[in-house]
Amino acid sequence: MHGQKRIRDYGINIGELPIGPFNAITDVKGVKVGHCTLDSGDMKTGVTAVIPHTGNTFLEKLPAAVYVINGFGKSVGTMQVAELGTIETPLILTNTFGVGTGVNALTRYMLDNNEDIGIDTGTVNPLVFECNDSYLNNIRGMYVQEEHVRSALAASGTDFLEGGVGAGTGMSCYKLKGGIGSSSRKLEMDSSTFTLGMLVLTNMGRLNDLTVAGRQIGKEIKYSRYSGEEEADKGSIIIFIATDLPLSSRQLGRIARRAECGIARTGNNISTGSGEIVMAFSTAQNILHYEKREIIEQRMLNEEMIDPVFQAVAECAEEAVLNSMITADKCSGWAGHERESLKRYL
Amino acid sequence: MHGQKRIRDYGINIGELPIGPFNAITDVKGVKVGHCTLDSGDMKTGVTAVIPHTGNTFLEKLPAAVYVINGFGKSVGTMQVAELGTIETPLILTNTFGVGTGVNALTRYMLDNNEDIGIDTGTVNPLVFECNDSYLNNIRGMYVQEEHVRSALAASGTDFLEGGVGAGTGMSCYKLKGGIGSSSRKLEMDSSTFTLGMLVLTNMGRLNDLTVAGRQIGKEIKYSRYSGEEEADKGSIIIFIATDLPLSSRQLGRIARRAECGIARTGNNISTGSGEIVMAFSTAQNILHYEKREIIEQRMLNEEMIDPVFQAVAECAEEAVLNSMITADKCSGWAGHERESLKRYL
Amino acid sequence: MHGQKRIRDYGINIGELPIGPFNAITDVKGVKVGHCTLDSGDMKTGVTAVIPHTGNTFLEKLPAAVYVINGFGKSVGTMQVAELGTIETPLILTNTFGVGTGVNALTRYMLDNNEDIGIDTGTVNPLVFECNDSYLNNIRGMYVQEEHVRSALAASGTDFLEGGVGAGTGMSCYKLKGGIGSSSRKLEMDSSTFTLGMLVLTNMGRLNDLTVAGRQIGKEIKYSRYSGEEEADKGSIIIFIATDLPLSSRQLGRIARRAECGIARTGNNISTGSGEIVMAFSTAQNILHYEKREIIEQRMLNEEMIDPVFQAVAECAEEAVLNSMITADKCSGWAGHERESLKRYL
Amino acid sequence: MHGQKRIRDYGINIGELPIGPFNAITDVKGVKVGHCTLDSGDMKTGVTAVIPHTGNTFLEKLPAAVYVINGFGKSVGTMQVAELGTIETPLILTNTFGVGTGVNALTRYMLDNNEDIGIDTGTVNPLVFECNDSYLNNIRGMYVQEEHVRSALAASGTDFLEGGVGAGTGMSCYKLKGGIGSSSRKLEMDSSTFTLGMLVLTNMGRLNDLTVAGRQIGKEIKYSRYSGEEEADKGSIIIFIATDLPLSSRQLGRIARRAECGIARTGNNISTGSGEIVMAFSTAQNILHYEKREIIEQRMLNEEMIDPVFQAVAECAEEAVLNSMITADKCSGWAGHERESLKRYL
Repeated sequence: MHGQKRIRDYGINIGELPIGPFNAITDVKGVKVGHCTLDSGDMKTGVTAVIPHTGNTFLEKLPAAVYVINGFGKSVGTMQVAELGTIETPLILTNTFGVGTGVNALTRYMLDNNEDIGIDTGTVNPLVFECNDSYLNNIRGMYVQEEHVRSALAASGTDFLEGGVGAGTGMSCYKLKGGIGSSSRKLEMDSSTFTLGMLVLTNMGRLNDLTVAGRQIGKEIKYSRYSGEEEADKGSIIIFIATDLPLSSRQLGRIARRAECGIARTGNNISTGSGEIVMAFSTAQNILHYEKREIIEQRMLNEEMIDPVFQAVAECAEEAVLNSMITADKCSGWAGHERESLKRYL
Repeated sequence: MHGQKRIRDYGINIGELPIGPFNAITDVKGVKVGHCTLDSGDMKTGVTAVIPHTGNTFLEKLPAAVYVINGFGKSVGTMQVAELGTIETPLILTNTFGVGTGVNALTRYMLDNNEDIGIDTGTVNPLVFECNDSYLNNIRGMYVQEEHVRSALAASGTDFLEGGVGAGTGMSCYKLKGGIGSSSRKLEMDSSTFTLGMLVLTNMGRLNDLTVAGRQIGKEIKYSRYSGEEEADKGSIIIFIATDLPLSSRQLGRIARRAECGIARTGNNISTGSGEIVMAFSTAQNILHYEKREIIEQRMLNEEMIDPVFQAVAECAEEAVLNSMITADKCSGWAGHERESLKRYL
Repeated sequence: MHGQKRIRDYGINIGELPIGPFNAITDVKGVKVGHCTLDSGDMKTGVTAVIPHTGNTFLEKLPAAVYVINGFGKSVGTMQVAELGTIETPLILTNTFGVGTGVNALTRYMLDNNEDIGIDTGTVNPLVFECNDSYLNNIRGMYVQEEHVRSALAASGTDFLEGGVGAGTGMSCYKLKGGIGSSSRKLEMDSSTFTLGMLVLTNMGRLNDLTVAGRQIGKEIKYSRYSGEEEADKGSIIIFIATDLPLSSRQLGRIARRAECGIARTGNNISTGSGEIVMAFSTAQNILHYEKREIIEQRMLNEEMIDPVFQAVAECAEEAVLNSMITADKCSGWAGHERESLKRYL
Repeated sequence: MHGQKRIRDYGINIGELPIGPFNAITDVKGVKVGHCTLDSGDMKTGVTAVIPHTGNTFLEKLPAAVYVINGFGKSVGTMQVAELGTIETPLILTNTFGVGTGVNALTRYMLDNNEDIGIDTGTVNPLVFECNDSYLNNIRGMYVQEEHVRSALAASGTDFLEGGVGAGTGMSCYKLKGGIGSSSRKLEMDSSTFTLGMLVLTNMGRLNDLTVAGRQIGKEIKYSRYSGEEEADKGSIIIFIATDLPLSSRQLGRIARRAECGIARTGNNISTGSGEIVMAFSTAQNILHYEKREIIEQRMLNEEMIDPVFQAVAECAEEAVLNSMITADKCSGWAGHERESLKRYL
């Protein structure tokens, strides 16, 4: 965004459902995104933070679910989400070796904002997700510091950049430049308009497989205009889904699983080396940390009405992947490695 | 097959890997398929049997895995496969209300062939899978009898019909006629040629979403040439994967999960009402029921080499779905319901 | 019950929570249990039906969850419960080879009571669970007929027999006689009294391991008073949990998992051959089949308050297993096989 | 060990299988354990490292499995073990807020020992497990530094201390002092003697529930000799299983699940707040990181012979929990909190 040219600006419209004002995860009210970009020499990495709502996430948790498409990844915090069906911190994206620092920084951020944690109440479950940017970034440098995480959290807003920024700085997608992408869909239900938004960090795929709206453009690029050598797919993708629809954690788990439909349509077959994780949360209602009532009430979607939400997820996933590529500039990084931009070929 | 015109005969080639001689699950040596078709008046149903190898499957079990894409289904026997990683019977496909009879018939078939079951040894785990053919078939008639299951088992061979036959008789796919489809891929590994084959029973999808090799033909049909009304997707798909590659049950579970990539490329987003189940097995080696050794050896693929197998699964799934449609004739069934053939539109 | 002497009548009290009036699953209002016992010559088997509530279970579904402790079993219907978190039929218990007939009978029972199934609406998910009674019963006889399932459903009530009745007729537990057992606990929450009840079908364990309230009585019996030879544990246990507490399906899944704590205290280590399945449901609220609202409300327990429910489950499981044994008489069955009653030794 | 008085020294023998020379996880050849204890003022915490074999674990991975009994925990690295069935680093235990530092330290340790990681090959999956020691330790101090992890790794050996040492320094168990415990069993199979060993970090349970070899000693202590107030169970337990038996990752997952049987016999019902994680690995054979063969062979146990391994796991779990308590001295920690030793009461 910020005026970036996105896939729709090329006349390529994915799916049929209407999009939100930003066509981004921040169309879900209260969701904010911030980056800290580390781009200098062989340092091509960074941090992206997604703040799920405007309140204190620890005190006012959100129903959530995680779905692991392929588990060759080092993302942290998913076990507790699977057990309890809630999130209680912002979501941090970074590179694989930034995870430990991400956990430390997010823990300290939560301690700073919650004096009761570890004293009057239990601990906190930091959520840190990663892809391996070691093709463009000197990942052994372990460049991500706690201040970068705080900086990404502090920079969060509703109009954010996509492509090679934040955690996306050193990421590759279909052997072109990837990174951060987003999209959203509006859903008319219960006489109201709800929004589903998605943010992805893309780092997967073989050029050969890249498909844009049904066109196998990867093969075209590979055989006619691309100088590089085909490489194995070693990459990953992280997918965050936010919605203001009241969905239970079980329902969020069901919608999370449909992200794969959209990703598959961009050409990928989920390589063995992929850490492919979907995290979905609903902002429609809170689970209070200090809930005093013994019985609570939760709204949820009539399950028979859930198919349009599945469609929204699949559409967003396909479009967000393409947005992560088309907004990314060509990048020259560590060890002389380069990734061209999809812009050159579309 | 049997000279049926399939999707490749229309010049539509899915994927890049080479196909086997039949381009069907029966390209995996030892695998046989048989149908019993019940097609008369409002009875539009049947049974399809897949025999996984030529030996006694109870005594010589096969490594296997099941993967549930969406669990709104009544298929039987998956729990034990998940626990033990083996299959010990043929696989039966039928309609939803034929499952109980399928279990009884397959149990009696196994008892007839194994006098020790229930006496000197334990019981047996029948595998029966289903889709709901109630649009074209009067499913409340519960027409499937045990003799139909035996008949399908007895009729099994390597050259089998696809489309509206056997369990596929009354099935719909993308609101056109669906049913049985198959495909295969050859893989060069370890200085040998291995085969991966697939058989699907298709009964899912909205016409609007049908995509053939990237072309959104469903929308074309819907807006220009189709007289029916759009219906919600209530359907299911069952996917069987066979291979002579030595894969562990864990690896079979991983390849099973890639079927969704191919299915998604035909347009589907996995509707809430779908019983979408993948069953994968390897014929490369047996697990003996009366194994005397305390420690056994099993061959398995070097996991780093598994990506081409994933690709084979995705390609087969996309092609098998299309084969299930293009081989199926228009069908008029119960309550005046009709399904056109994809042949009319392609 | 019906005046049967149960484990508390021997002065053995499991746990600390108060019990309900029947100390049985039928203490949960609306839950009924019925048996059909087939006990003649080498036919030692039967059917037990659990009716979850007094309404039409298909139209008024209940939140539910299934948890598989060990999956070497042939129980049917669990996949859909895992996906949708609801049950829509009674629960049937029978022997392993009675499952197909159980499915057919329960399907026909549901069709008879719901004219819309398969016509105006989808199908139905029959729930049939089993253990292998082939030690005392000639299981190859496949004696269970559809009328026996209907008979068990028709016989259902709140005061039911335990031990070697219904599906428990031919079951063994710790190499003594097992079968049907039940127990319940009362929970004070939200200024109300709630009930959690359990019914088990026991068919597992080695005599050596039997432990009653901490006392390793199995070893005592084995070394001093038992004439039989030690046999491997090949058995299973099915556990049904009912409660009128408002629990979400996710919460029901969590409580289901605690049944193992109670079972373990009777001595068992979950043998490889065990089909050990827990099914939990809540009667506190319905999920309507023809729900018209797009957003619904569901009550659920404040998750921080769930530990006493876990305790209730563990206590019920330990006591229900013991009740299944102490109420069972010695049984002589097929092939001259015998099982002594725990009554003889306690 | 080191001459510590353990539960068997009190005449309490758990189970029937023979124990190894140390009766500890280090009876499995190649497994070593090291501690770094931080015990000063309100700092009551530390690190325990388990080194799974004597080779380079990254280059020579081990078959492994993880099983989550209850997921209210922040342990790291389990997702990849679940996907690939291998471990490639030592296992680190520490407190909940030490996890980020544990990840960083273990990552650097692996980078130091493997120059190819992040350059010629992919990344590495650090395994860090935790319990919350905030009752005795000022957990907000985040005292664990990377040097403490390196120190624990460097200190590893076969004769190690149990109780309030290393990661166990500030842990509580059944409201008494807990910490590190271990046990082992020998298994005769295939004309050889195999060993299964376990190490636990205990931090769970209500005093009321503590049961020692069937005796409900917790109630005795509580009502007659204990001055403290009953507290809710907020705790966790981490369980590591090592064996030199050739088990596949699927089989390791099955044995991991039996740990709960032994834990339950010490009285616990798995509280909602528990991070209760089992990690099992086999040292019998390696999975090579740079495997060149396309098809490999793996030995595995004949599944029909697995019940004694289940028994070994259950016995070890019960005994290791008791060892973690009986070897721990009374501890006075942060905020004046105290935990008595079980030694005082047994």
